Amino acid sequence: MTILEAAQALRKRQVSPAELTAAHLERIARLNPRLNAFLTVTEEAARARARQAGQELDRGLDRGPLHGIPVALKDVFETAGVRTTCGSKLFENHVPARDAAVAEKLNAAGAVLLGKTGMHEMALGITSNNPHFGPVRNPWDTGSIPGGSSGGSGAAVAAGLAFMAMGTDTGGSIRIPAAFCGVVGLKPTFGRISRYGVMPLDFSLDHMGPLTRSVRDAAVTLQALAGFDARDETSSRRPVEDYLPEEGCSIRGVRIGLPENFYFERIAAEAEAGVRRMAATAESLGARVRFIRAPDIAAINTAGRVILHAEASALMEPFLNDKRHLIGADVLALFDQGRFLRATDYVNAQRLRRMMRDEFNKLWGEVDCLFTPTTAMGAPKIGAATVQLGDAEEDVRLAATRLVRGINVLGLPAISIPCGLDARGMPLGLQIVSRPFGEALLLRVAAALEDATGPFPAPPIQP
Amino acid sequence: MTILEAAQALRKRQVSPAELTAAHLERIARLNPRLNAFLTVTEEAARARARQAGQELDRGLDRGPLHGIPVALKDVFETAGVRTTCGSKLFENHVPARDAAVAEKLNAAGAVLLGKTGMHEMALGITSNNPHFGPVRNPWDTGSIPGGSSGGSGAAVAAGLAFMAMGTDTGGSIRIPAAFCGVVGLKPTFGRISRYGVMPLDFSLDHMGPLTRSVRDAAVTLQALAGFDARDETSSRRPVEDYLPEEGCSIRGVRIGLPENFYFERIAAEAEAGVRRMAATAESLGARVRFIRAPDIAAINTAGRVILHAEASALMEPFLNDKRHLIGADVLALFDQGRFLRATDYVNAQRLRRMMRDEFNKLWGEVDCLFTPTTAMGAPKIGAATVQLGDAEEDVRLAATRLVRGINVLGLPAISIPCGLDARGMPLGLQIVSRPFGEALLLRVAAALEDATGPFPAPPIQP
Repeated sequence: MTILEAAQALRKRQVSPAELTAAHLERIARLNPRLNAFLTVTEEAARARARQAGQELDRGLDRGPLHGIPVALKDVFETAGVRTTCGSKLFENHVPARDAAVAEKLNAAGAVLLGKTGMHEMALGITSNNPHFGPVRNPWDTGSIPGGSSGGSGAAVAAGLAFMAMGTDTGGSIRIPAAFCGVVGLKPTFGRISRYGVMPLDFSLDHMGPLTRSVRDAAVTLQALAGFDARDETSSRRPVEDYLPEEGCSIRGVRIGLPENFYFERIAAEAEAGVRRMAATAESLGARVRFIRAPDIAAINTAGRVILHAEASALMEPFLNDKRHLIGADVLALFDQGRFLRATDYVNAQRLRRMMRDEFNKLWGEVDCLFTPTTAMGAPKIGAATVQLGDAEEDVRLAATRLVRGINVLGLPAISIPCGLDARGMPLGLQIVSRPFGEALLLRVAAALEDATGPFPAPPIQP
Repeated sequence: MTILEAAQALRKRQVSPAELTAAHLERIARLNPRLNAFLTVTEEAARARARQAGQELDRGLDRGPLHGIPVALKDVFETAGVRTTCGSKLFENHVPARDAAVAEKLNAAGAVLLGKTGMHEMALGITSNNPHFGPVRNPWDTGSIPGGSSGGSGAAVAAGLAFMAMGTDTGGSIRIPAAFCGVVGLKPTFGRISRYGVMPLDFSLDHMGPLTRSVRDAAVTLQALAGFDARDETSSRRPVEDYLPEEGCSIRGVRIGLPENFYFERIAAEAEAGVRRMAATAESLGARVRFIRAPDIAAINTAGRVILHAEASALMEPFLNDKRHLIGADVLALFDQGRFLRATDYVNAQRLRRMMRDEFNKLWGEVDCLFTPTTAMGAPKIGAATVQLGDAEEDVRLAATRLVRGINVLGLPAISIPCGLDARGMPLGLQIVSRPFGEALLLRVAAALEDATGPFPAPPIQP
């Protein structure tokens, strides 16, 4: 069931928020021991919120489509009175006094918070194989990673443990788990959703966004969360648009670019086939698809890594001496790398970023959006360090991030929607990228494809 | 004579632009060999422009107060067809194809460009003791430095070689020569005047502004230059205000803060006395003066140095291997320092900058502007490495920059106006700082003080 279907059922009194919440809590109780998607379940608070939502709806107070809907937050969003660990041993007892802006807005929209989802330690990685809280597992195959860093959010939504789970995305951390878990993941434009109260990994790359089971569910969540927040200095004052694609929305005439230099190398055959199939579907719906050359994504990725490592290391520096024993080996290695970057490299990475932003801005004169695979392959097994892509063996982290990381550097909106299965039967994602603040178009294109291809199957996990 | 006086004389036909320009060219011919204020004199073009301006005024086409006024540009502003060296051997033959936005706007306002003024090599220093083009000299004492990096602009305006000369200010480079040469120097808010076509020293600290002989001359110049320019990505879209203070303008009720932690240590007695005298004058005009504690300026200066050195070194890196023999020793040492800064130090400097900006923003709830000395002392002799301040001997560069550099980090508008002479008879400056885009207030306060204290004397140099 999607948020919009549940919202309709709630208003027809076919189900109550309390029943919806109880059903989710029960499913969490049964499946979470196998998935480790939730780090913290706020059962009592959720039941109370659900009762309140039911009473509000009963007396005609309607807060919109999220009212009474059970949702979850990645454990990087601060929640007043509820532990927020950032997936780190450093913060295992951190109980914030405040709510993140996203938590506030979900509350105001009447959503019911079920709990906090697991993640890659400090959001700095894509496996969600957390050394302190255990690996998060993929509901399509519990021996495989769910992707990350928002792995718990991806697994929870795919397994039906929540209608929507918020993620954060610094270099793919929403889109990668969305692709690996067969759900929708939306990373809006930088500045569109407030970062207030989110434990920062990076100043200029962190984005907030939802993982959901349908494109329109992502749209209604964005609608509830978008908008200016004076507490986040990077928040945009740009007016919020109407994001929900209408039923049977048209994409006639939309110009879609397939950036051949983005992904024609070292991509699983099924991943490429999935994107081509989606492009053909878009074409059959009246969109204009053509091959283009995008600015050099490898250069953008390099700039992105320099910026990320320098900024993350600067943020974490106070912990890197006395408390290094509390940090996992992979994450510590990245922090330590960041400490040895030169200031001029960082400054030059920021210069390259500005140049690339200008180049991409020109691109939007030619096309309205880009289609690429989200990741080069489906989810690998837990513990796998490399993947085989054709003749080449590639680092899992690189193969997962190289098509998505650059989009954070540019601050562009992007969505990942399921587009097939790989040879192992694991889901694959199509990434659609659009111009700054092009979320409405992005969601319309994604919804039209979803309408045409039908709902993606649920994972085969048995409760 | 000031710009406004000359503008009146031009309109009364007491003088023509051609006569004004000829008189300036003659004065340059006589004094520049002693001052080295101009690197390039565009004599023929100036005479032609002046004739054209005269014809326009004769036929009733009035471009405003700068129409027909002889001016100069620091040799860092690109001028189409006119060599632009940046005071560097690297660019000694650089003849740009384009005009900087400032040059364009001065042209459009009818100003007559006399030529390009000398500067500290690459704008990276405060002596203007240029190893490639010779030292610029102070018209108050040709054995003393004029300050820098816009030293030629300060010397030219003080010696009557131009009504106005543009400078750039990355860490005090307009205000220091203004103070040392006894003229007015205005550094507007970051983003107020376009940086398009200015050879960059730094991405986030460079500001453009005029040096003039009166506050109102600075105001009319700002009026001609302020405004959005899409070619400079840091240009502000904020509407331009009316900057020219009316005659007899009042500062009744203006709240002036004397930040005691800014400057009560290691300041020449006359510099402190000058600021106190100006504060007493302001008080007698109805302003409310009080001592305050400003956020830690030493911390801001440190952040500013890290940011400047990293950004400048990143910009210059292509030249630092093969072409280092073309760079002066002091400037090369600073570039080399910048290359060894760590990225995390740079990132942390930018974080500190944001924190300090927030702290200063709170300050503007309490006061409307701050008064400090511009520099700790008057202009030292050419070649002096240190100055004696009370019991302490201090590096000339630090003593000149430590009250002004932080203001660039914060992007705040500031003006330096003359406020007395030191024990050697060299001018001293009062720095007035205001809130972002507070130029109108800043100029009003400065104009009221100038009205009350009368014009500052001209330097004793004999033609």
